[in-house]
Amino acid sequence: MLTFIGLGLYDQKDISLKGLEAIREADVVYAEFYTSRLMGATLEDMQEIYGKPVKVLLREDVEQHPKDTVLADAVDKKVVFLTGGDAMVATTHVDLRLRARKMGIETRLIHGASIQSAVCGLTGLQNYRFGKSATIAFPYKDIISDTPYDTITMNKKNGLHTLLFLDIDREKGYMTVNRGIELLLKAEERRKEGIVAGALCVGIARAGSPSPCVMAGKIEDLKACDFGGPLHIMVMPADLHFLEEEALQDLAGLKLG
Amino acid sequence: MLTFIGLGLYDQKDISLKGLEAIREADVVYAEFYTSRLMGATLEDMQEIYGKPVKVLLREDVEQHPKDTVLADAVDKKVVFLTGGDAMVATTHVDLRLRARKMGIETRLIHGASIQSAVCGLTGLQNYRFGKSATIAFPYKDIISDTPYDTITMNKKNGLHTLLFLDIDREKGYMTVNRGIELLLKAEERRKEGIVAGALCVGIARAGSPSPCVMAGKIEDLKACDFGGPLHIMVMPADLHFLEEEALQDLAGLKLG
Repeated sequence: MLTFIGLGLYDQKDISLKGLEAIREADVVYAEFYTSRLMGATLEDMQEIYGKPVKVLLREDVEQHPKDTVLADAVDKKVVFLTGGDAMVATTHVDLRLRARKMGIETRLIHGASIQSAVCGLTGLQNYRFGKSATIAFPYKDIISDTPYDTITMNKKNGLHTLLFLDIDREKGYMTVNRGIELLLKAEERRKEGIVAGALCVGIARAGSPSPCVMAGKIEDLKACDFGGPLHIMVMPADLHFLEEEALQDLAGLKLG
Repeated sequence: MLTFIGLGLYDQKDISLKGLEAIREADVVYAEFYTSRLMGATLEDMQEIYGKPVKVLLREDVEQHPKDTVLADAVDKKVVFLTGGDAMVATTHVDLRLRARKMGIETRLIHGASIQSAVCGLTGLQNYRFGKSATIAFPYKDIISDTPYDTITMNKKNGLHTLLFLDIDREKGYMTVNRGIELLLKAEERRKEGIVAGALCVGIARAGSPSPCVMAGKIEDLKACDFGGPLHIMVMPADLHFLEEEALQDLAGLKLG
């Protein structure tokens, strides 16, 4: 039996009661922190609340050699696999689940809070007004991906907001809103379509923590703002509904005019 | 102090440890179940685990007379406001939060699992391939809203999946996938754009429960399938990536060809 458990957004207390019960009943506890991370908890904090050790896997363990760890154990033991955010949202998890099922291993999901809906709550931007989301990746050999810019363009044309995930890299670390803005403005310099320059931008840091930071303003003005520690995420909104505008003024310091 | 707490998807154990702590420290506990509901828990189940009574509010209490209940109490007491799914995603909650802040009441969010990310985990459909979502509403005087049909059309044109929330109505109850499909096919009869007829459809019931139901197939074939009890939700996917196709075959009984 292999149970995927989403740990939620920020610390060891964002797990559900159901998730905690499953961990306490498990024979082996695995976790991966390459797709997301609980910034407010150390591994020790987690182990203390779970009452058992956690084996942390690297991307290559999960994607290349899962039969050496998770899958081997799940054949005849109760195994839980922990991830930040909600369970099974990343491709790497879907792949692991399908491999398990091919081996006849029963799988189960215990969901956790996800940044996607949390962003709506924190900003007041309406859930049904978001289009496709995208990730701003660290440049590869100075090449900046066009995907975020194209996604924002398509969404704006359809009157939709764009949620932009910010890259997590083992060597380069956690991308900040500031770096994300810089990369978008560089794409604008090249593309010159007037999609990003002068546009409204919303930056969010530490969702799910006791002190989340939410700031909205013209993208050039936000570029120098200090959002504090990770994780960061950002939104490029389309035109705002009046309740969204009111919410951003009140919750994110948006100044109009 | 007013704390919005998302209860997660299905029963009283989907709340986070953080959420439960906040309820136990609260002076007054309010809840609303008109935007969503925990189908796997009675009010008694919830009260038992919280160790205190829960006052359930109707839509008119929250939207028209919040100063008689939540806001009056939150001025000088610790008040928690419980909702199904994640906290503060619905407009009605954003509005309540802004009213509270205007009265100088401190507000806080404790997130819960949302159906939006849960659908990705349950189906294997990739998060970043979803476009705008829409709600299929019960017809008003036989008038079927065009919004879901238009949203699916726009998303398909952009190669994106559409998440369709199914209406919850105090009198008409919880809309099923079957009814949702019927309404989409009726819209197709009128519009005749070939967007929905013969298309792939995915129905999901009881996300977050021990026995969620996930079925994928041609929309006409799914129309007669029994998804069991509420809550239901559905997806009209765009063309599938190969991993999504593999996932739907394995997790949702999709048959190709």
